[in-house]
Order: sequence, then C-alpha cells, then structure tokens
Amino acid sequence: MSRLKLGIPKGSMEDATIDLFSRAGWKIGVSSRSYVPTIDDAEIECLLVRAQEMARYVETGALDAGITGHDWVVESGASVEELAELIYAKQRLSRVRWVLAVPEDSPIHKPADLSGKIIATEIVHITENYLARHGVTARVDFSWGATEVKVPQLADAIVEVTETGASLRANRLRIIDTVLESATVFVMNRSAAADPWKREKAQNLILMLQGAIAAASKVGLLLNVRRDDLPGVLDVLPALKKPTISTLSDPDWVAVNTIIEESVVRQILPKLKAANAQGIVEYPLNKIVL
Amino acid sequence: MSRLKLGIPKGSMEDATIDLFSRAGWKIGVSSRSYVPTIDDAEIECLLVRAQEMARYVETGALDAGITGHDWVVESGASVEELAELIYAKQRLSRVRWVLAVPEDSPIHKPADLSGKIIATEIVHITENYLARHGVTARVDFSWGATEVKVPQLADAIVEVTETGASLRANRLRIIDTVLESATVFVMNRSAAADPWKREKAQNLILMLQGAIAAASKVGLLLNVRRDDLPGVLDVLPALKKPTISTLSDPDWVAVNTIIEESVVRQILPKLKAANAQGIVEYPLNKIVL
Amino acid sequence: MSRLKLGIPKGSMEDATIDLFSRAGWKIGVSSRSYVPTIDDAEIECLLVRAQEMARYVETGALDAGITGHDWVVESGASVEELAELIYAKQRLSRVRWVLAVPEDSPIHKPADLSGKIIATEIVHITENYLARHGVTARVDFSWGATEVKVPQLADAIVEVTETGASLRANRLRIIDTVLESATVFVMNRSAAADPWKREKAQNLILMLQGAIAAASKVGLLLNVRRDDLPGVLDVLPALKKPTISTLSDPDWVAVNTIIEESVVRQILPKLKAANAQGIVEYPLNKIVL
Amino acid sequence: MSRLKLGIPKGSMEDATIDLFSRAGWKIGVSSRSYVPTIDDAEIECLLVRAQEMARYVETGALDAGITGHDWVVESGASVEELAELIYAKQRLSRVRWVLAVPEDSPIHKPADLSGKIIATEIVHITENYLARHGVTARVDFSWGATEVKVPQLADAIVEVTETGASLRANRLRIIDTVLESATVFVMNRSAAADPWKREKAQNLILMLQGAIAAASKVGLLLNVRRDDLPGVLDVLPALKKPTISTLSDPDWVAVNTIIEESVVRQILPKLKAANAQGIVEYPLNKIVL
Amino acid sequence: MSRLKLGIPKGSMEDATIDLFSRAGWKIGVSSRSYVPTIDDAEIECLLVRAQEMARYVETGALDAGITGHDWVVESGASVEELAELIYAKQRLSRVRWVLAVPEDSPIHKPADLSGKIIATEIVHITENYLARHGVTARVDFSWGATEVKVPQLADAIVEVTETGASLRANRLRIIDTVLESATVFVMNRSAAADPWKREKAQNLILMLQGAIAAASKVGLLLNVRRDDLPGVLDVLPALKKPTISTLSDPDWVAVNTIIEESVVRQILPKLKAANAQGIVEYPLNKIVL
Amino acid sequence: MSRLKLGIPKGSMEDATIDLFSRAGWKIGVSSRSYVPTIDDAEIECLLVRAQEMARYVETGALDAGITGHDWVVESGASVEELAELIYAKQRLSRVRWVLAVPEDSPIHKPADLSGKIIATEIVHITENYLARHGVTARVDFSWGATEVKVPQLADAIVEVTETGASLRANRLRIIDTVLESATVFVMNRSAAADPWKREKAQNLILMLQGAIAAASKVGLLLNVRRDDLPGVLDVLPALKKPTISTLSDPDWVAVNTIIEESVVRQILPKLKAANAQGIVEYPLNKIVL
Repeated sequence: MSRLKLGIPKGSMEDATIDLFSRAGWKIGVSSRSYVPTIDDAEIECLLVRAQEMARYVETGALDAGITGHDWVVESGASVEELAELIYAKQRLSRVRWVLAVPEDSPIHKPADLSGKIIATEIVHITENYLARHGVTARVDFSWGATEVKVPQLADAIVEVTETGASLRANRLRIIDTVLESATVFVMNRSAAADPWKREKAQNLILMLQGAIAAASKVGLLLNVRRDDLPGVLDVLPALKKPTISTLSDPDWVAVNTIIEESVVRQILPKLKAANAQGIVEYPLNKIVL
Repeated sequence: MSRLKLGIPKGSMEDATIDLFSRAGWKIGVSSRSYVPTIDDAEIECLLVRAQEMARYVETGALDAGITGHDWVVESGASVEELAELIYAKQRLSRVRWVLAVPEDSPIHKPADLSGKIIATEIVHITENYLARHGVTARVDFSWGATEVKVPQLADAIVEVTETGASLRANRLRIIDTVLESATVFVMNRSAAADPWKREKAQNLILMLQGAIAAASKVGLLLNVRRDDLPGVLDVLPALKKPTISTLSDPDWVAVNTIIEESVVRQILPKLKAANAQGIVEYPLNKIVL
Repeated sequence: MSRLKLGIPKGSMEDATIDLFSRAGWKIGVSSRSYVPTIDDAEIECLLVRAQEMARYVETGALDAGITGHDWVVESGASVEELAELIYAKQRLSRVRWVLAVPEDSPIHKPADLSGKIIATEIVHITENYLARHGVTARVDFSWGATEVKVPQLADAIVEVTETGASLRANRLRIIDTVLESATVFVMNRSAAADPWKREKAQNLILMLQGAIAAASKVGLLLNVRRDDLPGVLDVLPALKKPTISTLSDPDWVAVNTIIEESVVRQILPKLKAANAQGIVEYPLNKIVL
Repeated sequence: MSRLKLGIPKGSMEDATIDLFSRAGWKIGVSSRSYVPTIDDAEIECLLVRAQEMARYVETGALDAGITGHDWVVESGASVEELAELIYAKQRLSRVRWVLAVPEDSPIHKPADLSGKIIATEIVHITENYLARHGVTARVDFSWGATEVKVPQLADAIVEVTETGASLRANRLRIIDTVLESATVFVMNRSAAADPWKREKAQNLILMLQGAIAAASKVGLLLNVRRDDLPGVLDVLPALKKPTISTLSDPDWVAVNTIIEESVVRQILPKLKAANAQGIVEYPLNKIVL
Repeated sequence: MSRLKLGIPKGSMEDATIDLFSRAGWKIGVSSRSYVPTIDDAEIECLLVRAQEMARYVETGALDAGITGHDWVVESGASVEELAELIYAKQRLSRVRWVLAVPEDSPIHKPADLSGKIIATEIVHITENYLARHGVTARVDFSWGATEVKVPQLADAIVEVTETGASLRANRLRIIDTVLESATVFVMNRSAAADPWKREKAQNLILMLQGAIAAASKVGLLLNVRRDDLPGVLDVLPALKKPTISTLSDPDWVAVNTIIEESVVRQILPKLKAANAQGIVEYPLNKIVL
Repeated sequence: MSRLKLGIPKGSMEDATIDLFSRAGWKIGVSSRSYVPTIDDAEIECLLVRAQEMARYVETGALDAGITGHDWVVESGASVEELAELIYAKQRLSRVRWVLAVPEDSPIHKPADLSGKIIATEIVHITENYLARHGVTARVDFSWGATEVKVPQLADAIVEVTETGASLRANRLRIIDTVLESATVFVMNRSAAADPWKREKAQNLILMLQGAIAAASKVGLLLNVRRDDLPGVLDVLPALKKPTISTLSDPDWVAVNTIIEESVVRQILPKLKAANAQGIVEYPLNKIVL
C-alpha cells in the first residue's frame, strides 16, 4: 500500500496540530515513551520533528510532507513546495512577525546603526541576509531562547518573533523593523508532489484541515421570517455565501439557514432582530466546505 | 472613536464572567502580568475591578458600565442605573439572599432581640439601614470574610449571603430574616446611559449576553414525521415557541425543528417516539434570541 | 411515589457512567462525604455499588436495577434479567475478553497443560467452570489485582481481562484461549422487571442512554445540491438511514440533512464535493433516536 | 550469591513502606512500567505483592519474607513466622482493630443478635471463625470495599478496620465488639527463617527499620551546665536512657547529650532553663539504636 | 482546667504560623470543613481569625492572646499588650513598611502635594492619621486589594505594604514616604496578661516559638583543633555565645562545638580552615535556647 | 565594592544548581517575571544563562565566572579557566559521556564506517574534531534535541549524552565509542582569575559548594563505648577520617563521633552493636570540610 510520510511539528505547535487533526477527522496518539505517533489511517505514517528541522527533512525526502512555519522554511534554505497555509495555532491566529528590536533607550534607531554591533536571534541566516540587504556588517549570535532578556547586557539588538508586540513591550524593547512575516504552512517534497497518489492524499488532507479551521471561527445561524420581511433580513446577512431558504408548511413564512463568522454574530444579531427575524438560533459547527 | 469603559468583576465572579462573554462573542484576555484585560472589540475598554468597588467607579464615571452584584450596588450607596439582570454564574443560578442568622441555640428570634448585640457582616451599610428600619440599635462590625464562623465567639449574629442555606445549616446557624435579595446586574453610569451611542452599545451587549445565557439550558430538536402523525407530535412538544415545520421533497412527510429546555428532553423523547416521530436528533446551541 | 432503586458502578467505571448519564439528561452528584449519590429525578434513587457486587444486590431486590459488567453477573451466579448492552466506557468501546494467558516462553499451550498448575484470577468461579468443562484439575487463586505480573513467580497462568491484548503483550504474555466475552449491561431484578411502572422507567432510561451513546460517534451533515445532482450525492452517502431532503424557495435546489459516523466523514466529504454538493456543513449531536 | 526474596506491600501501604526503607538506608525504585521494584542491595530481590496475598506467597516459598498486616496473615490461614512488628505507616501509628459494627439505631446489640443476618466484610474467614466461637449462624458476604456504607441497605452488620473509630462514627455506626487487633508485621517463610544467612539478613534489616522508626519521634538534646547544677538538670530529664555527660576544658562545667521524645520537649525545655542549663540545643536524628 | 484562648492568623500568614508551631512542638490541624483548628495541647484552644481583626478580639477578651501584625494592631486602635515580636514568615523576614507611593511620572513629590487627591489603601485609619500629622486634607479610599494597579486610573496615590519595594517598582511606582513600619507580634489581652497561669503559659509558648525561630537561621558547627591552635580558631568564631570546648582522649586536641548564624558560615568556614581547624562539620538544629 | 559576575545555568540544571547554592549558604531567588536572579550576597551579581552559552560569555568577560558542563566549554571553543568540578545534579552524579551511537542493526561498527554518513548531534564542533582525529569525512547536522529518535530515518548515527546508557538502549541504539567525558565545572574568565579578590571569592565559593556536596552523601554517627571495647569499635569504623573520641565524666566510658558514608551505615551499624557500642545515633549533616 502507498503511504504518505508526514512530519508533525514537535514542541510548541504540537498540541495545536494534534487538536486540529482530531477536529479534521484523524486521531494522532503521542506516547511519552515513543517519538513515532500513531495515527488511525493506514495510508499515513507520522513522525514528530522539530519545526526548525522540518523543511530540511522534507527536502531530502525523509518525509513526503510536513507542517511547519514559513519562517523555518526560509531559515533552513530548503527547496520544498508550500501547498497551503494553515493558520490555526492559538498563538498564531494571524501572521506572526520576526522583528528587529532594541532596548527602549538604545541609540540604535535604524538598520544602519547596527554596524559593528551584536545581534542575538534564533534565525541567524535570515538576519544575516537582512543585514546584507541593508549593507550593514554586524555580528549575529545564535540564541537558544529567552532572547528578549539578552539586551543590553549580552547583545545590542535582537531579532525575535512576535504576534502583538506585547511581550517585547513588557521587556522594555522598541521595534525598529520587520525582518520577516510568517504563518504555518503545509510543505511537500517536490518529487512526492509529482506523485499523483501522494498529491491527492495531501490535497484531501488539506481539504479536511481547512474545513476544520474554517468551522472553528464560524457558526450556523437559523431563523424564521415572513416572506415580506425576507429582503430586509437578507440585506443584513454578509454575502459570504448565499443563505439556504427553505419553504415551511405555513406558506407565509420561510426558514433561513446560513453560515457566518462567529466574530460578526454580535453585530448581525441585533440587526436581524430589528429586521423582524424570529426564533434566531446560533449553533456550533465541526467542519465547513463551501 | 467612541469607547465603552466596562468593568469586569475581579475575583470569585471573574472566570464565569469571562466565560459568558466568550459564549456571547467577546474574547477577554487576562494576563497574570497585567490587570487590564484585552478584549477583541475596539469599541470596548475593559478594567478588572472588585465587585465591591464596581458601582463606586461607575458612579464617578471612571467606568461607563460594569457587571457586579445588586447587593454591592446597594451597599456602596452609589447612584447608577441597573440596566439588566444577568443570572449566569454557577453559584448564582438563582437569586441569592443576604440573611440575618444566629446560632441554632441563640436566644435571638426576631430583629428586636438584636438590641445591644454585635452583628458581623460584609455589608455594613445595608445592615445598619435594616436595623434602623426595625428601630433597633446594635453594633455592626465589618467582616473580612469567614463570617459564618464568627458566632458565637466573636459576634452574636451575622448577615451573610446564601443561595440554598446549606452552608449556614452546616455551621449550625438559624436564619431569622432576609435582609436583601440580590442577583448579578449590568450597571451603567447615568450620564453614559444618556449618551445614545453608549446606551445602544450596552443594549446590544446585554442582548448577546442574555442570548448566550438562554442557550446554555436549551437544545435544538429535529425530527421527521408523516403529515398524519404531525398533530400527535405537536401535542407532545412544549408550547414555549411554535416549532418550525418544513416541507420535504416527499410530500407525505414534514420536518419539525424546535428549541426546548434540555431538562425536559428525557420526558419528551420517549413520547415523541411513541407518537411515530422518526430520525429524532438533539443538537447543541450557542445562542438563542426568540 | 414509585421509585426505581438503581445501582451505579463504583470505581473504574464510575466517571464514565456519570458522564453518560449527564449526556443522557440526568445529573448525578457524587460527594466525597457520602456514598449515596444525588440524582435530579425524584423517581430514581441511586446507590454506588462495586461492579463485582452489583448482580448479587439486584438479585436479592436490595436494588431494582444496576449497571455492571456481564462478566461479574456470571461470576456472581446471580439470577437477574439483562435488559440491554451499554457500550460506552472509554476502556470498553468494544466487547472485552477474559483470556487465559501464560508467559511467552511457558510450556503451557492448551487448557490440558494446566493440570496441577496454579492460576491467578479475579474471576475464580468462571475459571473453575472453564477448567471443569475442559476436564482439567488445577488450583485457582483469587487475585486482588496486578494479576498480569504474578507469572511466572507466583502463578503458572492467569485469567485476565483485555480489550486489545496490548497490556498482555507488554508484559510478555501469550494468550491461549478466550474464557468469556463481556460488555457493560443494564440488569434488572426479575420481580421489578415484572412491575409495569418500573419496567417502563427502565426502558425510557435505556432509550436515552443509548441515544447519547449513538450520538457520541456520529455527526450531522447538511448540504445543498441541485435537483439534477441529487442522485449522485445520494450515491455517496452511506445507507444507514434515508436522508431528509427539504424543498427550498429556489425550486432547482434541495437541502440534504443526514446523520453519519464521524469516522467516515473524511472519506465522504471529498466525494460529496466532487458530486457538486455545496455549502457542506458538519455539526455535532447530543442524542439520536432513529 | 545468596539473596533474600522480599515482598513489599502494594497499594495503600506502598509509599509509607518505601519511605521507611529509604530512611533505614535502602533505596527502592518503583517504575510505572514494571512491578519488580529495584533496590540498591544486591543481596535483596523485591517483589510488589498485595498485602492480602503476601502471607500466602511467603508460606509457599515464592517469597522468603514480606511486610504485611497481621490481620491478612490470619485471614489467609498461612503458616509463616512473624519476626517483628513495624508500626510506621501514618494511618497505622498504633494498633488497628477490626470491629463488628451496626447502624446506631440497629436492634443488634451483641453477637448473638446476628443470628440469620447478613454481615459484609473483607475478612470472611476471620469473621466466620468469630461467629463460630460465639455459636452464631449468619451469612458473611465478601465486600470489595466501601463496606461502611453497605448498612443498612445491603447488610445488617459489618466487620471493618478502624484506628480511632472516627470514620465509623461519621457513618453513624455503633461498635459492638473487637474481632481482631492488628499491626504491620515482618513475616518470614519457615524454611528461610531456618537458613542462618537469610535469618541474619532479615534481622539486620529489621534492626535498621526499627532504628529509623525510633528516630522519627525522637530528637537529640545538647546542653551545658555547671557541675553544681547537674543533679537539678538530670532530675528534669526523662529516665529513658542515661544521658552522656562529657567533660569540658573548663573543669567547672560539663556537657549533657541525651535523646528524648520530641513530644515532651516543650515541657522539658522551660524546666531545663529554670534549672540553669545553658546553650540548650535540639537537633534532628536519622536513626537510633540504644 | 485553665485554657488559653489563642488566635491564629487566617490567610496569608496561616501556613507559616502553623509551620512555626509545628517546629516549636505543637501540631495544629486545620480542616477545610471547620474553622476551629485542633491543637495537641489540652491547655490551648485555637481559633482562626483574620490578622486584621485579631487585635479587636483580643482587646474584648474573646481571645486571651493572638498572633498578628503590629500594623493591624495600630489600624484597629485596640488596646492590647504586645508581649513579643515573632519574625518568621517567609515574606516577613525583616520588618515590612507601609509606604506612600505614586506613579513614576506623577507630579506628587511630597505629602503636601496630596491635598485634594484620592489615596487608595487597606489601612485607612493609619493613613488618615498620617495625613492629619502633615496637615493635609485628602480622600482616603478603602481598597480590597490589588491596590498597586489602581493608580493612575482609579486613584492618585496609594499606601501599600512592601518588604523590598520590588513589586512597587515592577508596577512603575515611586515611593514618597514610609507611613508605618511593622512586624509580626504576639499580643495579649490586658486582663489575661495579669492572670499568672495564662501569662506563664504564654511566656512558655513564646520561649518555644522563639527557640524554633532562632534555630531556623542558625546551625551547629563542630570541629577538632590542636590546643596550640585553639586561640586562633576562637578568634574567628563570632562572640554570640562562648563555644563549648570538650576534652578528647588525645590530650593534645580539643573539640569545639558552637552555634552560629547560617548566613555567616560561608565567611567563617574558610577562615577556620586557614586557622588549622580539622574535621569541620555543620549540622542542622531544631530549637535553640541560649 | 568589588563584585563577581556569576552565570547560573538556565534550564535543566537550574533547579539543582539553586538547591546546591542554598545548601552551601547562598539564597538565589528566581522570579518568573525577571531573568536576573537575586542573591543574598552583595559581592555577587547573578545572571541566568544557558549552559550552552555560558563559556562564551565568561570568555568575553560579560561574566567573571559561571557554572556549566565541561562539554559545552569544549564545544564553544571558548578560552576559560576550569577551576573545579562540581558533581551534584541528580542526573549527573557521576561523569556523563557523549557517545557515538547507531541503531542496533546498523552496518556501522567503527568510526571509519561513518565515511559519507550523516551524524546528528548537539555538539557539532566536538564531533567534527573527533571525525578529523579519525580521518573520517562525514556530514554533521546540528540537532535541536530528541536526537536519539533521529536514527535511522533522519540520520545514520548520533552523538548523544548518556549517564548509564539506559535511554539509548531503550531506543535500541548501540554505542560505538565515547567521544567526550564531561562533568559540571566552575569556569572563570582568565583576567578575572588573575584578579586576587575575584579569585579568592571564587575559591571560597567553591569550598562551600564542595562542602555541601560532600555532606549530601554522609551522616554523623555518635555512640558511647567502654574504654575496653573501644578497639573493637574502631576496627569496625571505616578509616576515612580518624573519629573524635571524647572523655566522659564516667572515666570508664568514652564517646565516639565520626562521619561516614550514609550508604554504609546499614552494614556498619549491626557490627557496632555487636562490638558493644551503646546509644548509637545517626544524625544529618549540612556541610563537611575535612
């Protein structure tokens, strides 16, 4: 039987990834005694691999595909195909940024000021390329973590990942520039991507993962409305997808069923009520494929 | 942009309040490093404030609105507008009562017997007003908590909050009178309440909070039934809200969709089956606005 | 008022049983201070009883009904009526087996080889009957637990419960024979089962428990499809139960609502999309009575 | 090399036993993956065995020695040698008692009243022997635990273990008689006890275990006193063991070093001060062999 | 029998107090179900009371004695006798200070700048007296806690307790003045202090508590030294208490046993070695009465 | 004032290091809000630094001294002075080894077989030097951890740290060679080591750390014996250090005080008793400088 060798990111993204697969329909079992997780699909073989190392092993074909960050793909310099973005981890709801930051009271205000300085970061290559693009010569130190507390005693500047910048501000750091934007990606080995069976298996997997991701931020909305009031109700609903309008046994009324972003319900619902919708009900969803 | 300054009760009601907001559509983020919670709505600015202090800060306008107990509104003496009751916290499913209680074997049996005695309570002003209404002179001591164990050694009577009276009985206390009934309330500063934008923002917030509260104890019920059996099925369903009856492609059948209290499903479902309903399905709800 | 005296299994099955009752519509409250759980149904009186002892007390009428394992019913020798199987506990998703097992390198290969040996087990009577059926004479020791580690030092063979055999293999044991298959059962006292009120109460309880069990592994699927494409979509759906097809206000389209096993969604959904289904939504269920 | 096969009681006494061995000088390592604990003594081989089954396996020679309760030795009927009592577990600081108990309001007041009744207990054989000694015929049911909550619904009386009787009183039970007194014992196989090497190994083990038990409740006391005041100081010290009196370089003074029960220090110390002792110091002990 | 009614501080000081009593020789048992702790001394009766309320109840005689903070004694205005200081709680190793603090960038720099401002604090009376002494009129708000995050939104200044000032600095607050210094005290009711039995009981209790406190920061030091080198060794030892010098069987050597602060061992020990001391051993102590 | 800038290893060695300093006499306080630990010695300034980065910062003088592994010193290539070994961490009681390991069934049996292979390790430089010494050309990949599960899929061999080899065997790896032995070391900047004040400060620190390490595995033994029996008792005691023999007021007796390894007490104590020693007491120690 054919099998897709799939890398699951070990460490900070691990739990969120396993949870996403569960919602998409695959149970991954990680045991503290083994680093080879089980999965309830005989066509997939999983391996836990650090996000930093994923692209390297997908490039060489040790893995057919893997889930990692775009940042680590770039840092590794590996040649792989990025099939899809998967934005799901709690700490990565939006794109993250790697930023150049210095202490609040630092005399450094632009990349050129870094000349001859020390920069600590987990992404040495990306930072070196960034410096080269700006024509600056500086020393880049690899940091094993806790990078934000290295300045000013151990480094002059850092390149660190941030979502909202809150943690940097809490450490009294000032952001100078964005070095790289990143998101979670599904990457595939170039030869594996050319194999029809593996490519379809990967595409179906992505379809379900994205179906679960889409459902996580959306809800179903069900309501009844008189035919006369239907246009007013439809005006309020977002145009994401045409709602389903069912006929009822009472010919003067119809039922409307639609899918909307959970985050806009709080704005839509008062307007639906004002438009004479009745029996409005919001219900949870597991997966959506529009 | 206009902003509603909203107080979230810190302490015992904190988790239940944040959970309710989440179900209503607002994510509040509390960090152990900061007392200013984040909220995913640019029109709201949150502040964690003790329930006891909430009304005071709403009165002065430091906050436009807040969530607290009616008891603490009265105790503070603050002049605020109570826009709605919100009965959601696990420990506050029904109204709570502040009661006057004494040891089981105490000679005190009515308010008049309190003359010259010591009363321990967290609500000193309310208790003093209560005594004044009964024409009784007694000493009222502020208690920092653990009030029910202060009698008989440290006080002759207490005024303490209770839901079912179980904790008082466990401490061998006898209830003499109810001093105040209370529930969770949404309060608003009087000037803010006169500002149309702020008032509408608050009203919409309350609509969603109450929609989430209503859904917590209800479920959706979906079933198919032959047109001939429909009257029998409708007889079984509670009259809370007329069910939605949809036409199916098979003209002999209809589908019935209705909302009922989860607690009665176990009685209704066997009867629906006996009335020839088929494909009966119970599904969960997030919000309801009937 | 009539009351059903119901035994809840104390110990390893306790949490799963209380969770199942909760999903079925009954809240059972267990306090660490009392062995008589509360239940929010005035027609039921609960008692926590060991699964091993359940059948004995149902036989004598101390309990009208109880939930226990078929194995313990047989071991006790008690005469009770088994009304239904309830396969719900995480560790008991499928039938379990009590097997005769020996160390991998043991010279014992068939029941006859047990002659004169020592067998450790928690089910002494069942094992003795099994030996008698095979005409073998051996010593059967009652084991208080940890049976699988008793061989080879303290016993020559064991009779132990297993679901997948994994724990036995991990202890390097070899299975020789299945002594008994078992599942969770709802048992009833024979006189109580002849009382119409008690029997109906028990049947309704079982209906709801099985409705909750059925829903746990299933989901609802909702989709829209052109009338022309409907046959192709129906071909893809499993034949478990005829789907509900509703008419929409747009006469060219219908809506399809069906219940399927969650485990097959990942295979069905790509095919539905290929068959031109639109707006496919998977939603969770609480209970199902088909 | 000779080896002592030693049974460690698995379950409720396990942690206290391992802690005692640690204080006595032997590190026992229990892994969740293995039921054969490691011990840092090549002359001992450990096995985790239920206290109830210990005597049985010591009798047959599967174990040379073991630690269990005297009660389980008697219940098993096994012929073993009890070398020493070891009273160390937190719940077993003093001897425990198995008592015959009934509900407070039961009509049963003496053993003879048990005729024809049901008795639930974990020690069926001891209870049957007790009834035979009193010439009473009654049914004795084996109880898998939670025995004290079986009366009055499932049994008329129980035989249950108790240290202070508090748990029985909390369950509103009345004690009628003591059936057996028990303590933790070190038991030995009769043949092994006759082997000089094994017996000496066991005796040395017991010496160290008892040395650690003795030290747990005692402390060292060190003080200086003028020769003239020595008699007054010695009068205050308990006569457990003659104190050690050392000569100092100042011939007018001596130093006194003694071992006393920690629980009496608070009474002795003020009196020592009054008797002109100086530089009084209390220090902790690991082991004592007087 | 006579009994001393003793208040134990409930809340933040509770665990440290119970631990101190344990080290002093009294076991206090606190149950989550009762607020009256048990104590293994028939001559003492304990009651858990908030530190804030302790002095009030000792003044009225509801308690004979109690342990609380000097700050709360002053704040309460109660007339009690302070028998001893007990500096033992982890967070109160040294005296604590209640300080007046403002945001770093506040225009307030001295008490006079507080005129017309709002001050939040848990010690309202002390703060009002402090303002009166400085001739300043300002509003003092009682704060239920989290005082340091109230400025600048809810108050202009705070009076808050601090040991090292670290927490204030972390919240970007600037200290303006010390309002009160405080430590833990053993207080006694004035009448009870005049009762010889109660006073002696309290004095013995204090002797043991202080003996345990003294031991916590001290250790025993034991060393051997040639008679010729003894003066050099004694020069190094602190003069807290004359060391005990014992004669040895080898007349050229003596043994020195002394008690010193643990915190100076790291300075003394290298010097002792340089002074030719041999076999230097540091051992732990339980109690010291010099 | 002079100050020693001291690096504490952050991460896996952190807790053990802080515990060792505490036993040696220095309290280090780590807050979750700050990465600069406090220490109760105004002459020391602490900084939490990864063990891997320690030598680098000691070399540049950012730190005067630090605690790290000898392995990381070598890997970093930094020129620092190793003043002492400190073998204290639970996982590092003995020297650890970095070993070259391959899967059990690998065709690689000696370093030469590595030619052209991939080796994964955390110590890239050391491994490259090792290969160069053996004249082998191979690719060395830096591994972020979980190195032992990289073979055979992601690497052909690994260089990994091990104490007993158990974890390697559990992963079915075979050890081929030892690449480096290592232990925890106290390293110092070369200039700082030439500064007399800093060097003495460091030496005294090491003296105390080693004093605490020595005491952890030893205990004090105190006993009385008749002068006639003294030779027999001394014969039993190990010759580690001559025991201290004190004269008593009873001239026929002496007291013996000695320090021995805790692990031999269980062998010595029965022999001491047989040699007529009396009042044998074992007591714990904090520090030892012999």
